[in-house]
Amino acid sequence: MARIDINCDMGESFGNYIYGADEAIAGYITSANVACGFHAGDPSVMSRTVALCREHGVAVGAHPSFPDLLGFGRREINATPEEVRDYLTYQVGALMAFTRAHGVRLVHVKAHGAVYNMAAQDKRLALAMAQGVARVDPALIFVGLAGSLLIDAAREIGLPAAAEAFADRAYNPDGSLVSRRLPGAVIHDPAAVAERVVRMARDGTVVSITGELVTVSPDTICVHGDTPGAAELARAIRQELAAAGIEAGPLDPLLLCTRRPGC
Amino acid sequence: MARIDINCDMGESFGNYIYGADEAIAGYITSANVACGFHAGDPSVMSRTVALCREHGVAVGAHPSFPDLLGFGRREINATPEEVRDYLTYQVGALMAFTRAHGVRLVHVKAHGAVYNMAAQDKRLALAMAQGVARVDPALIFVGLAGSLLIDAAREIGLPAAAEAFADRAYNPDGSLVSRRLPGAVIHDPAAVAERVVRMARDGTVVSITGELVTVSPDTICVHGDTPGAAELARAIRQELAAAGIEAGPLDPLLLCTRRPGC
Amino acid sequence: MARIDINCDMGESFGNYIYGADEAIAGYITSANVACGFHAGDPSVMSRTVALCREHGVAVGAHPSFPDLLGFGRREINATPEEVRDYLTYQVGALMAFTRAHGVRLVHVKAHGAVYNMAAQDKRLALAMAQGVARVDPALIFVGLAGSLLIDAAREIGLPAAAEAFADRAYNPDGSLVSRRLPGAVIHDPAAVAERVVRMARDGTVVSITGELVTVSPDTICVHGDTPGAAELARAIRQELAAAGIEAGPLDPLLLCTRRPGC
Amino acid sequence: MARIDINCDMGESFGNYIYGADEAIAGYITSANVACGFHAGDPSVMSRTVALCREHGVAVGAHPSFPDLLGFGRREINATPEEVRDYLTYQVGALMAFTRAHGVRLVHVKAHGAVYNMAAQDKRLALAMAQGVARVDPALIFVGLAGSLLIDAAREIGLPAAAEAFADRAYNPDGSLVSRRLPGAVIHDPAAVAERVVRMARDGTVVSITGELVTVSPDTICVHGDTPGAAELARAIRQELAAAGIEAGPLDPLLLCTRRPGC
Repeated sequence: MARIDINCDMGESFGNYIYGADEAIAGYITSANVACGFHAGDPSVMSRTVALCREHGVAVGAHPSFPDLLGFGRREINATPEEVRDYLTYQVGALMAFTRAHGVRLVHVKAHGAVYNMAAQDKRLALAMAQGVARVDPALIFVGLAGSLLIDAAREIGLPAAAEAFADRAYNPDGSLVSRRLPGAVIHDPAAVAERVVRMARDGTVVSITGELVTVSPDTICVHGDTPGAAELARAIRQELAAAGIEAGPLDPLLLCTRRPGC
Repeated sequence: MARIDINCDMGESFGNYIYGADEAIAGYITSANVACGFHAGDPSVMSRTVALCREHGVAVGAHPSFPDLLGFGRREINATPEEVRDYLTYQVGALMAFTRAHGVRLVHVKAHGAVYNMAAQDKRLALAMAQGVARVDPALIFVGLAGSLLIDAAREIGLPAAAEAFADRAYNPDGSLVSRRLPGAVIHDPAAVAERVVRMARDGTVVSITGELVTVSPDTICVHGDTPGAAELARAIRQELAAAGIEAGPLDPLLLCTRRPGC
Repeated sequence: MARIDINCDMGESFGNYIYGADEAIAGYITSANVACGFHAGDPSVMSRTVALCREHGVAVGAHPSFPDLLGFGRREINATPEEVRDYLTYQVGALMAFTRAHGVRLVHVKAHGAVYNMAAQDKRLALAMAQGVARVDPALIFVGLAGSLLIDAAREIGLPAAAEAFADRAYNPDGSLVSRRLPGAVIHDPAAVAERVVRMARDGTVVSITGELVTVSPDTICVHGDTPGAAELARAIRQELAAAGIEAGPLDPLLLCTRRPGC
Repeated sequence: MARIDINCDMGESFGNYIYGADEAIAGYITSANVACGFHAGDPSVMSRTVALCREHGVAVGAHPSFPDLLGFGRREINATPEEVRDYLTYQVGALMAFTRAHGVRLVHVKAHGAVYNMAAQDKRLALAMAQGVARVDPALIFVGLAGSLLIDAAREIGLPAAAEAFADRAYNPDGSLVSRRLPGAVIHDPAAVAERVVRMARDGTVVSITGELVTVSPDTICVHGDTPGAAELARAIRQELAAAGIEAGPLDPLLLCTRRPGC
């Protein structure tokens, strides 16, 4: 039976500022990437978010970022790989403390925004990030863009890696994402999105923006929690997965792309 | 044989800013309170500081603070006890990640500056802080001013507590510290300071500013790393302790004030 | 003909975080207190907010705060008066630059949150704040709680002062505000709020929570932009003012409480 | 008679952290670039620094940066030109408030670190920065690397521009600076540095690292205040300038490179 993880960024409120729709979406996802205070989130938000995940049986992961609250972690910063490694260690530790506090386990780490995108194409940076995680706990699962250097880096140092695909993003024929600046980059129709998720989970394929069948065999599929209708979209995905007989469940080290040749 | 821990704040540099004399003092102390990024310190400084402690066999503790880099954590902020609890959990976790990264153990937690002083006199705040630590790891040792509510709070929730005295601060007859605003509050003569440390460690007493013998029976004595001549002072203390046949060593859960009635 | 200023906090978004309903409310107010980056706001938000004010003919004021984005400026910090004076100078200057950029004038300064409340009862702090403003431009109008030390401080150094009342807050018989922790402290009924505003503007009185008639003779009345229905409330106030023949207009130095004996 | 401005970064302390040797160097420079809180500096440091400049008759300029205290403004951030424009407006305004407070004039603006270097080669960014300054006060002098796009951008929008050279940096034959990563990039010998300054000021030339005579005709020469011996170096420069009959004085709008063809 096919199985897929549905992940979503959570805990991105900060102080007086509310962001996302965590409570509405928590019932429809299987993993949460919890912000750690560098691009979003603060200690109290982190604590509440981990408690929310526990309540809904959602697996908790860290969502570390560049230190850039003002830019929401979306701006490239030419920090050194060593600095970024230390940023990841710091943030993973901070969130791990809250998982201990709430009696749950920290399962995975998925970097946020600009640092995720930069490392997907920069092996030295990706390796530094994987090391920043592995030295805290080598059993943590490192989530990265399917086919990217994030996956290669984790494999190289023996850290479990999970390949990620995006539910609502268009793909190029080579398996890369269509740039957000191009028309059609984001798919808004819930039915189309749900259908793509089923296909990726069941067949390991997606139809590219130019019509070719592309191999994308993810361990986890990202849904966005900060778009209007995010909860409805997540619900539609779960419904279609169930209808297709595909189990939705958190990342399982035994089933990861790390273990598949060519992942 | 008498035994005492000598602790010092470390890792208080930040980015381009250098602070303290960590390398000079590391050879003379037995425990380090490592800043966690809220009043001082940053991820890379934390990593280097834990590595330095490891190299010198210095026990590593967390030194959490209010989030106030501009005020160096020395200004009172009327945050709620719940907020402060979450601040401590966050910072303890962040530092714990670096102790894992460097293969050492996180031994204790000593709050910094304003939040330490406020909690010494505010039971609700002290309890929140002790809980913020205990829920990460109930074996962590909570360092607090000898005789203060910090010690009471830790005992109340079953967290190991260590009573702290200050090497270079004058005491009032009731065992409290003479306010820094008063003349004679800080003792600058290394010989006098070393002699006081020996007396506190061996006899459990200190001569108050008005001449009375006061009972102060600390588990750990704080030396300041950010004063001129800090390393010389620490060296003098170690020399006098050795001369008096008193062992200097990190905090030991079996010997803590928690286990002494009336601590 | 009676005249009153209606002020509202604006520009409290930050980076990716949206806050308040600035666009909806801009048409119904006559003065805006624009956040300056310390508790909320960022350079781009400040620029957009000043542009919005210009578009609607709303007078622009600075809304400086303690440096506490995490606490939204609502937490007391025991900074020194000199530090706070410098915080105000800095923030007033930063906003003044955007008023120059958009070709409008900076009219007033109203401190935010905790620092406003603390200074209302602390003359030394209030004086430092007034000086922090006056040394940038002695023609700036300093807005403070009617009858508080903020007003006294401004008068003492010759800075124009404007007395502020609150549209939706209950008053004690002595003219102070009922603590938000007590029932009835906030009035939610738009008709009741509008009626109170008219009475304060026309008669200089308000009915206290215990039924007594209290003298409150404000130059400006604060409406809150971050409560549900804020724009409707502001509209209702403007409508009732118009119906009562009371002009709504920005602060005018010639009409301020500073010029009234006993203000 | 030849004339040159000697500028130095100042006010780069922050809170409890001391940086540079402002007091020692203030007597030897003619212009100060004062940090504005984004990469260094805080409101109280800014106030003290402007007071120090006033005392020594040093012309005050703003030294705005990317918002990156942790990286001391030395890391590239791919912020949009509009964001950077707003950052400059904000910081220029904040410092201008302190010049008003101390009764001096804000004379120039020189961007710091990464944003200065990026804009020297990015016309769109340079233009945004020049506009961010001009809209606060079109009489402010915009300091940029001699021959760079910073100068072009200022000229293009009619903002006075001052060309900057570096006292202790080696030049390539094309007039660009030798990368700090290469040997010989920084000149440490005070006599050699002073001699170069005289030559640049008097003859408009410098000998490149490969021995060619290069045209460099600066309005202002930067000395670094954060290197050991900075004050001695500055003193040597002033002495040699005096010996060569070259006046050292602040930037003068009538003498700027803006007015020279080909600047």
